[in-house]
Amino acid sequence: MDNRPIGVFDSGIGGLSAVKELKKILPGESIIYFGDTGRVPYGTRSPETIMSYAREDMEFLLKFDPKAIMVACGTVSSVALDTLKKDYPVKTVGVVKSAAKKASAVTVNGKIGVISTGATHRSGAFKKAISEISDAEVFSAAAPLFIPLVENGYIDKNNEVTRLVAKDYIYPLLEKGIDTLILGCTHFPVIKELIADIAPSVTLIDSGKEAACHLKDYLCENEMLSEKTSGESRYFVSDTAEGFSSVAEMFLGEKLVGKVEKITF
Amino acid sequence: MDNRPIGVFDSGIGGLSAVKELKKILPGESIIYFGDTGRVPYGTRSPETIMSYAREDMEFLLKFDPKAIMVACGTVSSVALDTLKKDYPVKTVGVVKSAAKKASAVTVNGKIGVISTGATHRSGAFKKAISEISDAEVFSAAAPLFIPLVENGYIDKNNEVTRLVAKDYIYPLLEKGIDTLILGCTHFPVIKELIADIAPSVTLIDSGKEAACHLKDYLCENEMLSEKTSGESRYFVSDTAEGFSSVAEMFLGEKLVGKVEKITF
Repeated sequence: MDNRPIGVFDSGIGGLSAVKELKKILPGESIIYFGDTGRVPYGTRSPETIMSYAREDMEFLLKFDPKAIMVACGTVSSVALDTLKKDYPVKTVGVVKSAAKKASAVTVNGKIGVISTGATHRSGAFKKAISEISDAEVFSAAAPLFIPLVENGYIDKNNEVTRLVAKDYIYPLLEKGIDTLILGCTHFPVIKELIADIAPSVTLIDSGKEAACHLKDYLCENEMLSEKTSGESRYFVSDTAEGFSSVAEMFLGEKLVGKVEKITF
Repeated sequence: MDNRPIGVFDSGIGGLSAVKELKKILPGESIIYFGDTGRVPYGTRSPETIMSYAREDMEFLLKFDPKAIMVACGTVSSVALDTLKKDYPVKTVGVVKSAAKKASAVTVNGKIGVISTGATHRSGAFKKAISEISDAEVFSAAAPLFIPLVENGYIDKNNEVTRLVAKDYIYPLLEKGIDTLILGCTHFPVIKELIADIAPSVTLIDSGKEAACHLKDYLCENEMLSEKTSGESRYFVSDTAEGFSSVAEMFLGEKLVGKVEKITF
């Protein structure tokens, strides 16, 4: 048994969609969340900058002596995870490998699509992860506008703007014949219904959810689950705490319970 | 005569639309441009964070001993300009006051609209600046999605997505009867044609252009123009320099000539 918290970080608020899944399957775990809201987004930046920010995020969370860290950001998971794992002595779980595994397991025709930020797309991380476990063909596309659309509340299933943008991104993948689509950015589950409507015959893989399941398995296998029945959450951000709670609820799917504090690097 | 450069900074690349105007009307001036591409956007952040970033931007430019600094960012001009002017002993020009002046001069019915980032909208800076010089009524709206749309190339006059978003932002202002619309963010001139098409009877005010004109007047009056016939430009960014040139051209309206260098704070 291990009552230490799980650290979770993301470039901003998207990672809360993974926290939602963590809370669902591991209600006894305490969570320390850090969202780098003062420097979000990461997905439009260079690998060097992403790496440098990710190190600061890790080092902040390590101060809380977490038993594991979840990198709930598709961009950091794609660009920086191997280095973070090498450089920091803590169990670190990203959102790429478990989604790659799930997609490889569920595809019937061996054609998997991936949508993500620009930086994730350019990294080829999902393609590489899938190629290591299956022969599936991978078709990747950057879907950068989904992030500001979600953050600005253009999330209704029938939102005409988001539907048009979704068609721009997803129709070319459908034309390739994909039967499975990885939502490779933790912002995307918020518009899962809309995406499902655009691509009704495709199985959607929520990368944050798969990572949460993987982390649960790891904690079970290593007898590191918390003894508590209900964990506590603390939230840290790098911009001001005001306004965070209301947007956070869109991702958490529930009221944010727990303190939100601002940090300065 | 003063051959020192003009410093220009923006949260990212949008400020280059003001540089375009500067180069047009002051071809002899040398320009040092800084775009904080490692932390863009500013318009979604809190006043505290914007202030802190703006100070770092100013201090970087001051190393080049500029004769004047143009804050080519609507957000910084709205949220931080007064403090910057007070704290740094250099002529500093923002994009709010000159646009407010121009709009007050051209409006016929005394109803002026402003579109900007969220932070600019919340600051009320344009409203305040106009109220100091005229009795015009001001109707302000945040237009946050224009920024990622422009940065992702959704800029064609007929782009269906950007047109829909533009209608969301601008129709409510048209219903108020505005005859003048300030483009209060330096990203927006890139989609000026599209906005003009949505609001054909409205006079558009390019805030970067007005600031450039104001700066020219100041340099003329104070006999601080450069003696050169052709100035040089240097560009600095806080993310990697790769990729900057190609996006920059969309804002500059010409090929970027001059070195692009990465800095670290």
